[in-house]
Amino acid sequence: MCDILKSFEFLSKKREEKPRSCGLTMVLDKGLGLQTAESLMEISGEYVDYLKFGWGTSIVHEQEIIKSKVEMYQSHDIQAYTGGTLFELAYMNNKLEEFFEEAHNLGFKAIEVSDGSISIPHESKVECIGMAKDEGFEVLSEVGKKDPNLDKELTLDERIQYMQEELDAGSSLIIVEAREGGKNIGIFDKSGNAKEDEIDYILDNFYASKILWEAPNKDQQVFFILKLGNTVNLGNISSDDITSLETLRRGLRGDTVGKI
Amino acid sequence: MCDILKSFEFLSKKREEKPRSCGLTMVLDKGLGLQTAESLMEISGEYVDYLKFGWGTSIVHEQEIIKSKVEMYQSHDIQAYTGGTLFELAYMNNKLEEFFEEAHNLGFKAIEVSDGSISIPHESKVECIGMAKDEGFEVLSEVGKKDPNLDKELTLDERIQYMQEELDAGSSLIIVEAREGGKNIGIFDKSGNAKEDEIDYILDNFYASKILWEAPNKDQQVFFILKLGNTVNLGNISSDDITSLETLRRGLRGDTVGKI
Amino acid sequence: MCDILKSFEFLSKKREEKPRSCGLTMVLDKGLGLQTAESLMEISGEYVDYLKFGWGTSIVHEQEIIKSKVEMYQSHDIQAYTGGTLFELAYMNNKLEEFFEEAHNLGFKAIEVSDGSISIPHESKVECIGMAKDEGFEVLSEVGKKDPNLDKELTLDERIQYMQEELDAGSSLIIVEAREGGKNIGIFDKSGNAKEDEIDYILDNFYASKILWEAPNKDQQVFFILKLGNTVNLGNISSDDITSLETLRRGLRGDTVGKI
Repeated sequence: MCDILKSFEFLSKKREEKPRSCGLTMVLDKGLGLQTAESLMEISGEYVDYLKFGWGTSIVHEQEIIKSKVEMYQSHDIQAYTGGTLFELAYMNNKLEEFFEEAHNLGFKAIEVSDGSISIPHESKVECIGMAKDEGFEVLSEVGKKDPNLDKELTLDERIQYMQEELDAGSSLIIVEAREGGKNIGIFDKSGNAKEDEIDYILDNFYASKILWEAPNKDQQVFFILKLGNTVNLGNISSDDITSLETLRRGLRGDTVGKI
Repeated sequence: MCDILKSFEFLSKKREEKPRSCGLTMVLDKGLGLQTAESLMEISGEYVDYLKFGWGTSIVHEQEIIKSKVEMYQSHDIQAYTGGTLFELAYMNNKLEEFFEEAHNLGFKAIEVSDGSISIPHESKVECIGMAKDEGFEVLSEVGKKDPNLDKELTLDERIQYMQEELDAGSSLIIVEAREGGKNIGIFDKSGNAKEDEIDYILDNFYASKILWEAPNKDQQVFFILKLGNTVNLGNISSDDITSLETLRRGLRGDTVGKI
Repeated sequence: MCDILKSFEFLSKKREEKPRSCGLTMVLDKGLGLQTAESLMEISGEYVDYLKFGWGTSIVHEQEIIKSKVEMYQSHDIQAYTGGTLFELAYMNNKLEEFFEEAHNLGFKAIEVSDGSISIPHESKVECIGMAKDEGFEVLSEVGKKDPNLDKELTLDERIQYMQEELDAGSSLIIVEAREGGKNIGIFDKSGNAKEDEIDYILDNFYASKILWEAPNKDQQVFFILKLGNTVNLGNISSDDITSLETLRRGLRGDTVGKI
């Protein structure tokens, strides 16, 4: 990407270029048209590291369009991957083998393993991570429940133990659940504010560089960047907000000007 | 649509294909560019049954672009129709004949008849439905007021009586008003939560299959799908949420996994 | 634009055509792809007078794409301009000259001068407006702070004094800050409701036609249009809401039907 000419570069700090080891951005695609996604990646694809085909959306779209989108994202050096719910549906239906095969056919080189919507014994989840690795996929795994009541039953120590076991099993990144909405789930309260003490506790007990925090709302992104620096890994970013997040990371938007 | 190849089909229940008799989805177009709309319909057009050109937007856009959009939507077997406010403006200005003629010229084969923003004696509204039918249009009619204070003056029994009279006059679907926002209007309270007892009362006294519930927010869509099944008719869906709604209907998103 | 054929024109009042002296609409571009922006301008570009490349977004995008976007917007008679934060970064880094030069190179003919994120003595801000004018730019200047606590320290009389001084220095429009969110800032309270008494006071002491009110949310747009008429200048309009705002201005959406 080093041959792309930018303007006003004297006003901005540099950011590590892709492939990045930190400061990763994961974007949620919930059904963009191919041309619209292409147009968006032309202007801001260099700021996207991971691209999640949300939950089970890959089931309802035409195979050829998904293939073209995966290929297009990869041409921008973006790791496209299947949403966790798709894995959970396959697990639930005892169709993991078929799932891996079709994911390969569509061109995906990474998948997400989660148990947000169904109950999976943790040792089985860890096994699945290993299986996906053996199939040649990069694995991102997610800790947390989509149902706020179930999610609250997970203690912080359990969360951290699971994160460690999943990392040991081969996950390249551990995602902390916050859904598309970012409220009343995991590390966010009902208003979407971050629970700083819980975040501190996680950071005291796990590798910051291996966590990808879902942070769909701007206030949450600002919170993490100001707290952990612009090398924090953030996910579930709306496709509308790719550029905004990059400017937040670089101190080019009001909320972070002069603070990075 | 039966020749479109999908992936992971072993993970999903089938849905009735178009033309559908139930489980209809109505999407709100509030001014999409032609190419953007095309790109969106290529990936998700098969999940859209009705497409509303919101309120009076058809007045401010170039005729040729509207014609192209109507034709493009119809090529995906989507019934494009004019928003209710456009009818109301025509009624208010005594220009119904001219309105019907221009709607024909633009290629619309359906229109919405409503009285959300102005006062129309109900017998006149019913007459207008008949007139539009005579002009060859499919008619969707809407019951409810856009002003929350006026809307509250309508009793449930009046609503149901109006719905029946409009159905008898030839409306193919009766829309229950919720606007683009879905709060403090009709069956939704100030927080956007559904008033379940009122919905039950309506369902006890009217044909569920003839109702199209406006449900712009995800929580509302989940509510209706879990309550009434995925054959419920839902409307005012944002163009961003077409794929999300289809996955909700088919148990492919966290909120409805294992519950459909 | 007079040769563009519209439909249903008998239902709508005319609006002044571009270049307009009032009823101006300023739209916020926070990173649209070029083709997506083109598609949007084809359908609704005639309703956009000013287009702001939000905050420092111009720093992170490829020069060639920005040039193409600026040119494309200008071909629709839209004045494209650089966000205020970009000016502030240049000021902060003592790089005003380089900033003006690169803005020229990209094709911008207007810039925004603001002090929302950093502290600038007001006489220096006024000087900068003069400098930008001397460089051949149209200048829009903004009064207000992005930090709600700092913003509250500005008295109404100070605001008005600053507005007057900036107008005298050559600003063509004075922008009243509300950010992209429109809550707890300037003339809007924590819920995003307008503080009518403060607005009245400003209007009693400054030229309404020289004010561009940032009003990102629909309720705020309705408030201003009903209070001040459709000739009010409104800004920070989301690119999704261009058509909606135009219909509000012309009494073609429920909220303003029969009230314009």
